[in-house]
Amino acid sequence: MGKRRHWIERLAHVELLTPKPEESLVFFRDLLGLEVTAQKGDSVYLRGWGDWFHHTVKLTAAKEAGVGHIGWRTESPEDLEEAARFLEGKGLGVGWAEEGDLGQGQTYRFRLPDGHQGELFFEVERYSPPSEKKPLLKNRPQKRPYRGADVRRIDHVNLYASDPTPSRELFQELGFKWHEGLWVKNQVEMAAWMAVSNLSHDLAFMRDPTGAKGRLNHLAFWVDTEAEVIRAAELLREAGVFIEYGPGRHGISEAFFLYVYEPGGNRIEVYSGGYLNFDSDWGPILWDFDDLAERALATAVVGGPPPESMFAYGTPPVMLPQS
Amino acid sequence: MGKRRHWIERLAHVELLTPKPEESLVFFRDLLGLEVTAQKGDSVYLRGWGDWFHHTVKLTAAKEAGVGHIGWRTESPEDLEEAARFLEGKGLGVGWAEEGDLGQGQTYRFRLPDGHQGELFFEVERYSPPSEKKPLLKNRPQKRPYRGADVRRIDHVNLYASDPTPSRELFQELGFKWHEGLWVKNQVEMAAWMAVSNLSHDLAFMRDPTGAKGRLNHLAFWVDTEAEVIRAAELLREAGVFIEYGPGRHGISEAFFLYVYEPGGNRIEVYSGGYLNFDSDWGPILWDFDDLAERALATAVVGGPPPESMFAYGTPPVMLPQS
Amino acid sequence: MGKRRHWIERLAHVELLTPKPEESLVFFRDLLGLEVTAQKGDSVYLRGWGDWFHHTVKLTAAKEAGVGHIGWRTESPEDLEEAARFLEGKGLGVGWAEEGDLGQGQTYRFRLPDGHQGELFFEVERYSPPSEKKPLLKNRPQKRPYRGADVRRIDHVNLYASDPTPSRELFQELGFKWHEGLWVKNQVEMAAWMAVSNLSHDLAFMRDPTGAKGRLNHLAFWVDTEAEVIRAAELLREAGVFIEYGPGRHGISEAFFLYVYEPGGNRIEVYSGGYLNFDSDWGPILWDFDDLAERALATAVVGGPPPESMFAYGTPPVMLPQS
Amino acid sequence: MGKRRHWIERLAHVELLTPKPEESLVFFRDLLGLEVTAQKGDSVYLRGWGDWFHHTVKLTAAKEAGVGHIGWRTESPEDLEEAARFLEGKGLGVGWAEEGDLGQGQTYRFRLPDGHQGELFFEVERYSPPSEKKPLLKNRPQKRPYRGADVRRIDHVNLYASDPTPSRELFQELGFKWHEGLWVKNQVEMAAWMAVSNLSHDLAFMRDPTGAKGRLNHLAFWVDTEAEVIRAAELLREAGVFIEYGPGRHGISEAFFLYVYEPGGNRIEVYSGGYLNFDSDWGPILWDFDDLAERALATAVVGGPPPESMFAYGTPPVMLPQS
Repeated sequence: MGKRRHWIERLAHVELLTPKPEESLVFFRDLLGLEVTAQKGDSVYLRGWGDWFHHTVKLTAAKEAGVGHIGWRTESPEDLEEAARFLEGKGLGVGWAEEGDLGQGQTYRFRLPDGHQGELFFEVERYSPPSEKKPLLKNRPQKRPYRGADVRRIDHVNLYASDPTPSRELFQELGFKWHEGLWVKNQVEMAAWMAVSNLSHDLAFMRDPTGAKGRLNHLAFWVDTEAEVIRAAELLREAGVFIEYGPGRHGISEAFFLYVYEPGGNRIEVYSGGYLNFDSDWGPILWDFDDLAERALATAVVGGPPPESMFAYGTPPVMLPQS
Repeated sequence: MGKRRHWIERLAHVELLTPKPEESLVFFRDLLGLEVTAQKGDSVYLRGWGDWFHHTVKLTAAKEAGVGHIGWRTESPEDLEEAARFLEGKGLGVGWAEEGDLGQGQTYRFRLPDGHQGELFFEVERYSPPSEKKPLLKNRPQKRPYRGADVRRIDHVNLYASDPTPSRELFQELGFKWHEGLWVKNQVEMAAWMAVSNLSHDLAFMRDPTGAKGRLNHLAFWVDTEAEVIRAAELLREAGVFIEYGPGRHGISEAFFLYVYEPGGNRIEVYSGGYLNFDSDWGPILWDFDDLAERALATAVVGGPPPESMFAYGTPPVMLPQS
Repeated sequence: MGKRRHWIERLAHVELLTPKPEESLVFFRDLLGLEVTAQKGDSVYLRGWGDWFHHTVKLTAAKEAGVGHIGWRTESPEDLEEAARFLEGKGLGVGWAEEGDLGQGQTYRFRLPDGHQGELFFEVERYSPPSEKKPLLKNRPQKRPYRGADVRRIDHVNLYASDPTPSRELFQELGFKWHEGLWVKNQVEMAAWMAVSNLSHDLAFMRDPTGAKGRLNHLAFWVDTEAEVIRAAELLREAGVFIEYGPGRHGISEAFFLYVYEPGGNRIEVYSGGYLNFDSDWGPILWDFDDLAERALATAVVGGPPPESMFAYGTPPVMLPQS
Repeated sequence: MGKRRHWIERLAHVELLTPKPEESLVFFRDLLGLEVTAQKGDSVYLRGWGDWFHHTVKLTAAKEAGVGHIGWRTESPEDLEEAARFLEGKGLGVGWAEEGDLGQGQTYRFRLPDGHQGELFFEVERYSPPSEKKPLLKNRPQKRPYRGADVRRIDHVNLYASDPTPSRELFQELGFKWHEGLWVKNQVEMAAWMAVSNLSHDLAFMRDPTGAKGRLNHLAFWVDTEAEVIRAAELLREAGVFIEYGPGRHGISEAFFLYVYEPGGNRIEVYSGGYLNFDSDWGPILWDFDDLAERALATAVVGGPPPESMFAYGTPPVMLPQS
């Protein structure tokens, strides 16, 4: 067994596309509680009160909902170079961006195996609060706003893939650990949960039942306690947001979850708990998709069964083929 | 800026010495809720219900309380070799162990700059539960015992050092990130919080006011929620355990804490929360020891001021020099 | 408006019938965490660690599951006399018991309008703990056992009635406050939530869709926090208990709920939260059963929709008439 | 044993005096999260989002901080008459108010034995929310504002008395239950916790060490969870509010507490948990003030020891006599 690659340090940001940019902005800022750090062109840049980077969400007006690109930060400039060469060699490279995005330096763009757009960069601008947002605690980027669900930081992104296997394999080669999987009798991979960090997962791929490519299942934001997830459920319901599923606790990842749709149609998770894994070679724990009891347990060890939409709806919306 | 070293993956276990082995065992097993996995010679091996390794605590009968050795796991055999060579080159090497301890393979022993004993290994035995402890969730090593404070896993170790600086510098060279520090006017380092993981810290060094070398401040165990820390406080108090400080929330690390003394005299923390850091180059956040308000805030953003013992008592016990 | 009657002080105990007495006892003692205080004939007497009375549950072996009798305590001997005379006058009296049950004095028995058996008494034996259960806090009846779901006390009983209206009206005359109701267009009463205490309810009646008389919907036990309800859900699921619904938060009562079936078949609720009402003339708040959105909200403001069994299954089991 | 009196239903409101009315208003509205319902003369009327009455706090500009009057609601007009006659007979009557206060009907004024001003009334105006505050749940008076500590409702008032015994005895005659007490060797009563509701207490008297009459120890507001108390501690500290003690859990009452000073100087408690008592004849549980360990336990079963100010500071401020 050789050494694990450590090119990539973390999920840095996700670009979400929305056909209703104004309503989506109200959702992310006023209901989820994200902070706006910049606006440029058709995009608004946001971050949680505990996110140190310039932004962790880029909200871009578009014809259809979905995921624009996913950005990861590398551990060093050398790591950026090496990872770029690796992706180039895989034939997945798009190339160095001529102009970086707000808040980040030299950026390398690539395609994920299922067509999602990715980018890597090292240089990043840390958030610097104006005086009225200076925190009591200097180990925080800013005061907690206590607004809406008051989410603390970005947590993970869950991507649909027409076939999750090539995507999962690519990220293993990039140094991600493969923590859990859902399989049809060890033959067909239905989903994979992966992490470049100690989280239960910061990246997941789920088989898209529509066969479409490049869609989003959901983007998740962290709150510190289960009680805050429950509080968010009530707050968002009172605000008229569609609650799809939860609160409950997944068997896979052990995380406490709540899934809602933001006005643009993207599924958003408010998330807490979940185990941490500190081992480089732990997992994958594989769950049997064909064993109904085990599939149910994998989905929710606490809370009722999921609606069918959880494994079918995504953005951009696609009709399921008639069987 | 070059690449960060990734030899070491995680804190694997801590050996605690106790002059009251039977009473200490009752504390760790029945009150904290650890599971006994083996006994050999004067030692009992224990782990939390969420710890995957053979043991995370080795409790050894001894004349005096204190820390025996601290074990870290490397990411690969190659990493073990490289780290061993590095420590050899530093003049800190003790050498390869002729015989490994229970549950681990080839082991390299070394001295920390202040005299604490360390060891590195890669091969490790994972816990395999008997049938009555098989968990409902296959991503857990065993059933949760629901016994006592029911701590989930080892979290971090906090070591006194006659001078914390050389220890902190060594672990930075070993790839640990330096997250926070407490300094007298940027001149004298009083304490350092470091992590090889995404935790706020998995290793800390505090200046020993007695000037002694190689002592232990505390060993910390994780529970999933603040409510469990509060529950532990009441449970341990009812059981007659000495509560030194807490529950409260530190400013440094943002963690929710409770400090007690186990019967052998070692300080034990029940711990939850605390920020996660996903960046390789975040910190150090430095707090001013001379600014009384800032020092108080660093100690507890929620909860009252600490007793003086928090920064003086340790194991083995040493009398503070009379001033 | 005249003075409210204060004959009855509180729900004192509920007798549950079980066709599987041994398995039911394991459930109540080891999984819910109740304490056994006595055994006599076919009955075991139990109480929560925070219950002061001799028992709050009497578990009696029987051919079928269901509710045996419900006991309420009066505020004084005079109140007992007056309430007995009142019930006698209503034609609901059964008479003074020749022999009281364990832990209680002179007892008056009566029938509720739908056939359930009730009893009133004033004299009650308070629990006196043996030395090993003496609590740290003298305002508690005993040490918290930290066993299973570790429920603290009895909370409320929810009874099916072929017609809830006469039962609700009787208890209003007995001094209970009518807090909430579920009605079909203000014409048909589907359910009533009532309280003789400050709880959102300590007694409820629900229209039995089978038309049967005298059945039990559920008996509820209190835990102090929502987190304990969630913990109970996982603990009970791992122990193989059937989880019917929850955790979630009701709209009606605002309580955090979890419904399971004990081995004898009776539905048991683990319950926390819920508003308190301190006014004598608050309510009733009426919810529209025909408005699907309002009915859903009344059922769960947090958490998914209920299974149909929640409003049909009860004990003893009865088949729903085919429509 | 005769029947317990049920004239009084609940604590209705407390008038607080403040020498800094504008800053106090900011504290109660923006930091505690109370809602303003009216302003008249030198007074602002406020209530928690879960309070149904027109107001539960009347904040009145005054030269010195302290308590203006305490209002209780009776169960019926007849109960109001009877209680008034009783107080008249005791020589404590002040008389029927010529003009009622905002939001309440006919009002009887009286003096408590230590000089505090009390009033009783039955008719009360319930809060009616404007459309933008209409709640999702119709069993709530309004939408939760999610502002500041977001306290839900008034909970209890704790009054200093030069001698607590006559006050405690008066309220027992008025039908309050005496739940707990702190005594010097069964000879000198130091404090009494009483309830007319099922709460651990809604009224308390503490011996004033200064010997002054009619002072306030604190006014308490309820939040639903311990986690919200902890959240309030951090939020209020960040806002610059003086935190005197907590969070912790009292032995007496078992309640989770946080004590702060509002800008006018009055001590305010953010409060959760605490046992409920449903028995009319439970208590008093007496704690020994002279037994230092028991006194400490009574004060805090979870959390460190109190500052001395907790038993000496009050409003209006009085200097302790030099011993």
